[in-house]
Formats: sequence, C-alpha cells, structure tokens
Amino acid sequence: MQGGSESTRLTEALGPLHPTRDELDLQAYEARLARPVRVKAAELQRDGRLRHLIFAGQLSPALLDDLAETADQVRVLSKSRAGQDFLRDLLAHRRAMLYFTQPSTRTFLSFTAACQILGITCNEVRDPSTSSEAKGETRFDSIRMFSSYFDLIIMRSPVARLAESCAYLMNDLARSAQRSVPIVNAGSGADEHPTQALLDVYTLQRTFKFENPADSPVSRLDELRGRYGHADLSTGLAHKTYGFCGDIGRGRTVRSLAMLLADYPGVRLVFVTPDHPALRMRDDLRQRLAERGVPVLEVDSFEAPVDGVPAIEAIDALYMTRVQREHDTPADQESLARLDLSPYKLTRDLVARMKAYAPILHPFPRDQHFGEIPAEIDSDPRAMYFRQARNGMWVRAALLAHLLDADGAIERYFHREFREHHIYSS
Amino acid sequence: MQGGSESTRLTEALGPLHPTRDELDLQAYEARLARPVRVKAAELQRDGRLRHLIFAGQLSPALLDDLAETADQVRVLSKSRAGQDFLRDLLAHRRAMLYFTQPSTRTFLSFTAACQILGITCNEVRDPSTSSEAKGETRFDSIRMFSSYFDLIIMRSPVARLAESCAYLMNDLARSAQRSVPIVNAGSGADEHPTQALLDVYTLQRTFKFENPADSPVSRLDELRGRYGHADLSTGLAHKTYGFCGDIGRGRTVRSLAMLLADYPGVRLVFVTPDHPALRMRDDLRQRLAERGVPVLEVDSFEAPVDGVPAIEAIDALYMTRVQREHDTPADQESLARLDLSPYKLTRDLVARMKAYAPILHPFPRDQHFGEIPAEIDSDPRAMYFRQARNGMWVRAALLAHLLDADGAIERYFHREFREHHIYSS
Amino acid sequence: MQGGSESTRLTEALGPLHPTRDELDLQAYEARLARPVRVKAAELQRDGRLRHLIFAGQLSPALLDDLAETADQVRVLSKSRAGQDFLRDLLAHRRAMLYFTQPSTRTFLSFTAACQILGITCNEVRDPSTSSEAKGETRFDSIRMFSSYFDLIIMRSPVARLAESCAYLMNDLARSAQRSVPIVNAGSGADEHPTQALLDVYTLQRTFKFENPADSPVSRLDELRGRYGHADLSTGLAHKTYGFCGDIGRGRTVRSLAMLLADYPGVRLVFVTPDHPALRMRDDLRQRLAERGVPVLEVDSFEAPVDGVPAIEAIDALYMTRVQREHDTPADQESLARLDLSPYKLTRDLVARMKAYAPILHPFPRDQHFGEIPAEIDSDPRAMYFRQARNGMWVRAALLAHLLDADGAIERYFHREFREHHIYSS
Repeated sequence: MQGGSESTRLTEALGPLHPTRDELDLQAYEARLARPVRVKAAELQRDGRLRHLIFAGQLSPALLDDLAETADQVRVLSKSRAGQDFLRDLLAHRRAMLYFTQPSTRTFLSFTAACQILGITCNEVRDPSTSSEAKGETRFDSIRMFSSYFDLIIMRSPVARLAESCAYLMNDLARSAQRSVPIVNAGSGADEHPTQALLDVYTLQRTFKFENPADSPVSRLDELRGRYGHADLSTGLAHKTYGFCGDIGRGRTVRSLAMLLADYPGVRLVFVTPDHPALRMRDDLRQRLAERGVPVLEVDSFEAPVDGVPAIEAIDALYMTRVQREHDTPADQESLARLDLSPYKLTRDLVARMKAYAPILHPFPRDQHFGEIPAEIDSDPRAMYFRQARNGMWVRAALLAHLLDADGAIERYFHREFREHHIYSS
Repeated sequence: MQGGSESTRLTEALGPLHPTRDELDLQAYEARLARPVRVKAAELQRDGRLRHLIFAGQLSPALLDDLAETADQVRVLSKSRAGQDFLRDLLAHRRAMLYFTQPSTRTFLSFTAACQILGITCNEVRDPSTSSEAKGETRFDSIRMFSSYFDLIIMRSPVARLAESCAYLMNDLARSAQRSVPIVNAGSGADEHPTQALLDVYTLQRTFKFENPADSPVSRLDELRGRYGHADLSTGLAHKTYGFCGDIGRGRTVRSLAMLLADYPGVRLVFVTPDHPALRMRDDLRQRLAERGVPVLEVDSFEAPVDGVPAIEAIDALYMTRVQREHDTPADQESLARLDLSPYKLTRDLVARMKAYAPILHPFPRDQHFGEIPAEIDSDPRAMYFRQARNGMWVRAALLAHLLDADGAIERYFHREFREHHIYSS
Repeated sequence: MQGGSESTRLTEALGPLHPTRDELDLQAYEARLARPVRVKAAELQRDGRLRHLIFAGQLSPALLDDLAETADQVRVLSKSRAGQDFLRDLLAHRRAMLYFTQPSTRTFLSFTAACQILGITCNEVRDPSTSSEAKGETRFDSIRMFSSYFDLIIMRSPVARLAESCAYLMNDLARSAQRSVPIVNAGSGADEHPTQALLDVYTLQRTFKFENPADSPVSRLDELRGRYGHADLSTGLAHKTYGFCGDIGRGRTVRSLAMLLADYPGVRLVFVTPDHPALRMRDDLRQRLAERGVPVLEVDSFEAPVDGVPAIEAIDALYMTRVQREHDTPADQESLARLDLSPYKLTRDLVARMKAYAPILHPFPRDQHFGEIPAEIDSDPRAMYFRQARNGMWVRAALLAHLLDADGAIERYFHREFREHHIYSS
C-alpha cells in the first residue's frame, strides 16, 4: 500500500488529468520505488561506493565514519592557503546543477559553499515556471538536459520521490551507454533530507570526540568521567540518550536522524512533544524504531522522568525543532491554539540543568516568533547550532568528494602534508 | 516596408507615447536595421572574423566548418583533465554578461556551460523589472553599463532587433575609441536565434560524417552505400533532402536552419505541416528560398510522395518542432481545434520507415501534452535530440572562442597534443 | 533625538507588533547606533585599517588616497594577462555573499565584477521572501548563517542602519572568539551609500590629476594654466568649486560626497535646486557643512552668480542627479507638477559654457523621461559618467583588497613589475 500511495502521489504531482506518455512511463519507476530500502540502496551504489545519495537509509555507521574523516580533512586543509588551493583544484573541471524548485536558502548556500571549496562550478535553476516546463517539457526531459551540461545534479523538490526516480533514470541511461551523472537529494517532498541527517550526525561525531573546545561544551573526557561524575561516558555516538523536542510528526530531519542513530548500539531516544496528532511521532517511525529494537520514550515534558531523573537532566544531546505551522491544517490551527506550547521552548533554566557536555542542536531556521531557542542561549557553550550549520558545509563537501571519487586524493594529500608539515586535526 | 515596420516595432517596444531623446536617437539605428543582410553582415565583422553574432545569415558554410572544427577540438580536449585545464585557463580573464530578459532555461544553461568550459566567468540579469530600467534608464544605458563591467554580452530579448541595435552601438563606441564588447544574439524577438541554427547544423555535420556511432545512427558509410543500397550517399550536408515537421510558420529555428541549408548544393527541403495559416510556411521564407533556387516541397502528410516514395521514407534527416500554442490568436485556437494534428506526431511505425541513417532532431523543449515525439522513440539510434542539446554546448563554446580570438590557441594546442599523445577525434 | 528616531525605525522595520526576543536584543545595538560617527568609526577599524565599511564618514582623505592608489594599480595590472592572473589568484580562496534585499542591478554588478577581478567567488541572496526569513528567522540569524559559509558580506537593504548593526554583531562574535567576517554597506536605507561616494571621489581624483586624456577633458595642466587662463588651477580635490544639481534633498549620494569633499581645504559647494522642500538641501546636511566651515551656496539656477559669473561658468566639476520621483509624497507630486523643472536639465548650450576641464558626473541611472542629461551630451569630453561607472568597479576592487588585507600584496607586485617591465600608470 505504501508503494502504491507514493506512486499515486508522484503521478498526481507530475501531471494533469489525462496522463501523458511520460507519466505512463513513470509506472516503471513506481514499481521500483515500492521496493524495500535495502534492495534499492544497492542500486544507488557503484563499485561499493555511493553513486547517488537519495535516502538517509543509505548512510551506514561505517560510511558516516568515512565521510566524517573526509570532512575533518577538508576543514583542516581549508585552514591554509596551500590546502585551499589543493582543494579548489581538485574538482575544478566539474560543474554542478543545483535544481531547487522548493526554496531553501540555507541548504542551497551550504551546498554552494561546499562546491566552491572543492572548485566545483555551481549553476542553479530555482524557478521552474520560467523554464522549459512551462512549455510542456517533462521533468525527466529537464533532468536529462541538466545531465547534458553538468556533471552532478543536486535537487530539492516538493515532489516526493522525484530525486529517487531521477537516480533510476540516470542508472538506465548508464546501462545504455548514455551520459549519466550522480543525483543528490537535497530535500524531496515530506520524506527525505539525507544531507541534513548527515550533518546532524557529523556534529554529534565532533562533539562526542570530546577533543576540540569549539565542538564540545566540555572537551576533556577524563574530567567528565572524574570531576563531573559521568564515569561510564564514552566517545562516539553509541551508548547515549538523545532527546528530540518540538514538531516530531512533521520534521523530516528528526525522522532521518532517529533512524540513523538507531544503527548505533546502546542508543535511547526520548521524544518530548505535546500530545497532538500533528506534532507527535507518526506510527510508521514508531514501528520502524521498534523493529530495530531501539528503546523509545515519548513524553510531553522535559520534566518527565527518564531513569528516575527529569528528561532534561538525563539526555546526552538535545535536538530542538521549529513547529512547522505552515503545514497546519485548519483543524490543526484550531486545536493547536488551545494547547500550551510554552513547555517546548528552551529557557536558560532548562539549559542550566542539562549535562555539562550535552550539545544543543537545531536544523535551523529557528522561529523568532515561537522562540523555541531564545537568543540568550546562543552564548552557552552547549549551543552547537551555529557550528552545526558550518559543519554542514564541510560534510557536504566530503559527500561531493566521495560521489566524484576525489576523497582518496584528499586523504593522500592530507596524510602527506600531515607527515611533512605536522598540521593538526581540529 | 519590412525595414519600416521593424523600426516601428522597435520604437514601440522601447518607449511610451511621448518619445524620449533616446528613442529619437534610435532612428539612426533604424535606418541601419533596414539595410540588406549582406551589407549589414560586413559591419558585424572585424578583420575578416565575426565581431558580433546577430543573424544566422552571417554563418557561411566555410565559417560553419571552422566553428565545427573548433567544437570538435573542444570536445576532444574536454575528455582529459589536462585538456580541460588548458581550456579553462584560456579565457579565465574574461567575464560574460548573460542578459536574458526573455526566459529560456535551456539556452541560458547551454551558454553558461559553454562559458565555463573556457573559464569565462558568467554574470546574469534576467528580470529587467528589478534593474535600473525601472528608474527610467534606457536599454542602451543598461547595455553600456554591462559593457563597462564585462567583456562579452550574450542577450536574449523579446524586443526584435535589440541585439542588432546594440551591436551597432558597440561599433559606434569602438569608432570613438571607447570601450566596446562583442554582442551575441541568443534569441531576439520572433526573428532570429542564430546559435540554435548553429547547433542544428553542427549536429547534422557530426551525423553526416558517418564516423562516430554516437552521432550517426549508422556510422559506416561504405555499408550504407553497399548493404543498405544508398549508392549515391555522400558525407556532408550537401545533396540531401531535409524534412521539417510541425509548426513551420512560427518556429524561428526552422526559418534559420532552412536558410543555412540553402547555401549547400543539391539540398531539397520538405515541409510537413497542416494547411493552416499559423503553422505553414510564411511567404517571406518561401520567397527567400525561391530566390536561392532551392527545391521546396510543402505537403500535409508524411505519406505525401517525394520522388515516388512517401516523404517519411525519402528524407535524409527529420527536424521535428513543437506547436507553439502560446502564440495562438483566438482565431487560431478555434480553427486549430477543428484540425486533426495527429499526423504531425512521430510514432514508432513512422520512425521504422525512415532511412536507417536519418537523424531525428528537435530544438527542444518537446511538448509532453501534444507529444510530437513520444518518449518511446528516445531509445531509437536515430533519436539525436539529446545529443543535439550537448552539441549546442560544444559549438557555443567554439563560437565564444572565435569571438574572443581564442580559437587559434585551441587549434595549436590540439594539434600539438594530437601529435604527441595521439588523442583521437570523436 | 537622531539616534532615538533611527532606533525606532530599525525596530519597526524588523518586526511585528509584539516584539520578539531578537528585537528586544536590538536595543543594545540601538544604543551603539546613537553614538557620534567619530566614536563609532574607531569600532569599525582593526589594527588601524578598515574592518567594515559602513559610513562614508570612515573615509578620510588619507584613506581615499590609499584606496585610489590601489585602484590605479589594479586597473594597470588588469591590462595584461599576467597582471590579471596575479589578481585573480590573490583572493581565490575567499567567498563573498552579496545580500541585496534592496534591488540595484548597477551596484550589484559593479561589486560582482570587482570580486571577480580579485578571484573572489560571488554568492547572492536577493529575495528574502524565498529565504529562511519567511519561516520566522531573524535577520541576525540569516547574517550569522552567511558568515558561517562566506568570508565577506556585502549588503544592501531597505532597513536603515542594518549594515551597521551587523558590523557590531560581527565585532561581538569576534570578541567571543567566534567566526566573524567583514561587512560592506552597499546602500542601507535612505542614509548611507559609502562606496558610491568612494567612486565619485575616485573619479574626481583621476580627473584632477590632469594626466590621462580618458579621465580629464583637458589633461595638460600647464596648458590650462597658460592658454586657458586658469592660472591658479592645482591638481587634486582641494581648492575647487563643486556644483550639484537636481534632487539634493533625497539623493544620499550627494549627501555623502558633499561631506567627503568638506574634508579638503579650499572647497566650495554650489547646490542648484528648485526651491522645493523635497528637492533642496535638508537642514541636517546644511548644519553639518556649516560646522565644518565649508562655504555653501544654494541657488535655483545655473545662471545665479558665483564670484560674479553665472554658476555654470564658475564650477570646476558638476554632479548631476536624477529626480527621485518614486519617493514623492502625494503633496510633492502636486507641488512639483506646478514647478518648471527644465532649468535642472543639462543642455548642449550649458555644457558649452562650462570650464573646458570640468567633468560632469552622475551616479546613474539617469532618467530618460526626465532627461537631466540628454544623450547628445554623451560624446562631450567632459561627460565622465560612463567612465565613472567603470571607476566604481576598480575602486570597489581596491576596497575589497583593503578589507581582506591584499592591498599590500598588490602594491609589492605592482612595483616589482613596474621596475622590471616599465608598465605605466594610466
């Protein structure tokens, strides 16, 4: 049924009442879209590496470690002019298309900056109404046009599963020895935003190294184990309790991050939301987490007990979200107006009670009118959300390097420089 | 009358009821606009080379051969990192302005990619309403501003003859020792789109070399002469029969391509259109082709006889077009609704009857709702329209190299590399 | 009161009726905004150099000389491919954000070209409605996002003092060891447009060198002193009479330029405007000029006597402006309709009576409907306004080089090349 309903959505989004040839052809893709993620993920690889990035589900802990390592190398190299010049030459012969028919300044600029770090030339289409689509061109013809001119397509679209379908189109072209380029999903419909999950994980990886004061509110693990009394605290993402607060139901970043964290041992997830059908966890996520055997707590307050202490004191990291009021139905508007949402805003007092090392993340933008994170918290060492945005740039550069087979060259250069000039990881 | 009516259109398009100083000055250009193309073409040259590209009429068979050769060299060099680096350095000190006040994603991106191949930095203005024109600036002041900052202006405008007028403005500035830059017409009003004609010819040049399987449905000329029974078949554009189908009346690409083909010996043109005043050939094109002495057939079906066989079987190349419904008058809408347009759509059966080597071209975008080329034909080896789009990028790069005097450097580098490393044309 | 009223404007522009956290925080900035320019200017410096450029008031004659020298070096280096390559490599590791929420094609393109000359990669946000601000993000969060990804923010905004506030935000971040980048004000509200004043001064500096025929209507100072009878004429901006004509009241470029000229000895200013409250000089500018002791004449005609001759014959330079009708109140519209504005348009006859060496400047765009400078004057050697636009590109490049600490490298390269290859200033 899941596959069928996605199929319907795709056909509806693509065309008018009388189906065109191209829409009929889409049914081939729809059958492929309906397969389990595990099966599909294999098709999005080539030679054991990512060919396209479409779902967060493609990101295994091992791959996440590889990408984080490349990202760390890119950021260190970017501290010197020689390293910057090396990076900018690396993919200077490549041209990217950023096809963003769903607006997102932040994601757009982050990808653009990532491209520029590696020397990739950026091109963009943001408004499809001025393009050939207004003259009756199908989206697939548009994508093939982009693949004629450019070497990589980064796409963000309101149409669910469009990026995935385009990846299959590219695979089909490759099979018939025609020009084919990698597709990166920069947000597709309500479902997937895999590079946001990637940067969220990268931020947690940086923090839970307990190495760099800029990344970790407390960067001395031995101190934390000793003086602060967290005897069992370990580095890495495993064996931690992650809190999520706010709009869990409609936040695709929460869905993706939760699923990625579920792959690490000893992880627990605490969801703090009002008991409202739009905001609380959806059944499908609850079921998928249950299938993985991840302990999940759903509570309606930071004061709800976890291991006998209030949730706010128990969590190792806190992921705040914006309430996406733009997706409210009229019924939501009415019922949400009657709820007290103030418990889902962070305050200085709440932050003061958090663990000293626990980072606060937010996918941004935050909402100044709702105020889920007031500006007065920005100067707290646990506030990691601005750093998180910059992490997105580094890890997206790492992803692009991986997709265009340049990560090996980065690693070799990095280790040679490291040996010769003693540059340091930071 | 022709010149006079264009003059009126230009003045009308540029200004309000009371003519401004600048519009009055335009009359100087209007007298120049009204001269015969042959006379004007000389003014758009410098030192025997193109200074500006404004009309398809400037493109002689000899120049088309030169540009195709440069394009071939650019595409071969682009296969290696060393060649790409050479090309990207070539014009890295040049900055282009893409002034596209008439939207066209495809043409825009093709020019952008062409610039990027040669290292030219791109800048764009697409929406004149946000520019200085809203503050009362004349278009000529805007163009002079662009020529202050940039080294080349690529313009696409709804105003007929604006690109041509700007070329004369640049010539006048050069004469008074002021800064002046080349103008490229990327589509001006309903009349001219010379780089589309250029890429159409380049695609035919590639196909009728019968060399590369990617460019030619059948790439062995000896086989075609023998096994397939085309004993008289020769390489090159001459001595061929070209079919055009669809919207001949309103398609400026058809007009330009037909006129260029008319310069080759032994060419015949077959126009397949419904007998409707909006869609069939206009009188002026019919007359210009007659003046050149080109045999022209106007038929209303692919089944109409040419040399005793149905047209679809007689043609050596087929140029399909989109019916440009956006230009329908209310009367057109009514009368077209009564016509059966299905004979002007390609089908598998029709394609099966075409000559084995005959390429199918389309200026794109194609219209999924009308369906002049259904997607099922895309995998036929005669379908050359996606390849044609990529050809546009290569030949536009060749044009820019020619205009900025870099084609000689490309040729020298190419031949040196060819001698030393045995790279092959493909 | 001045500071207070600006504060109110800022708060109003930034937010809705119920102030958000972020707006409340703005009050900290508002206190800083209200301080005298002299005090604030110090905060916008670092190590005796500009860190941010926010007001024209930061530009002392000494700094203006330094920037003009760098601009001269950049333009000479740009004449050779070797010089261009040197410049384009200089800041190739830097990425700029052009945040232009108030449209201005000319200023935008000029900054873009300036960046490209130095190899700086450009990025842009022009329409805030498609950005995160629509999701409730504060402008300060947006600016911090830009500062995460980019190395320099060039901003033009309808909000008065936004650029200044952002500069203080960056300073605060630097103080807490967080990432911070320079801010350039490319036009902020009705008050400040410092880089326009910079290019106006640079154009006068070039002209009053009396060296290069392209910059100076008469370039032989000895001839001017002898044959033309200007015995006391000296090089440089000092000891000159500057005329300003048109919309003095609403033209921020006039305000800024007048204040900069006031810093040179022996300067006199003549303002030629109709006696209308919207167009004539505002009290605050009149008072500030009086405090500096600058002789000021306000007249309503080019025929009004200055030193016993008509103003048009007495001035050493003429700054024309566009009447900014888009800022008319309904009362202005009515009263301006009754005025005869024709005396504030330049004519061939008026230009013929100007001093032979006196340049005509205009910040552009000029208004073809009003016609303050008819096209027939463009070919007069005194018409310096197209040259002025190109000067803007060079001096903005000099400014960016200064802000990013690359002006020293330019100077060293220039002098080495000059010594070795005898390149000449022009």
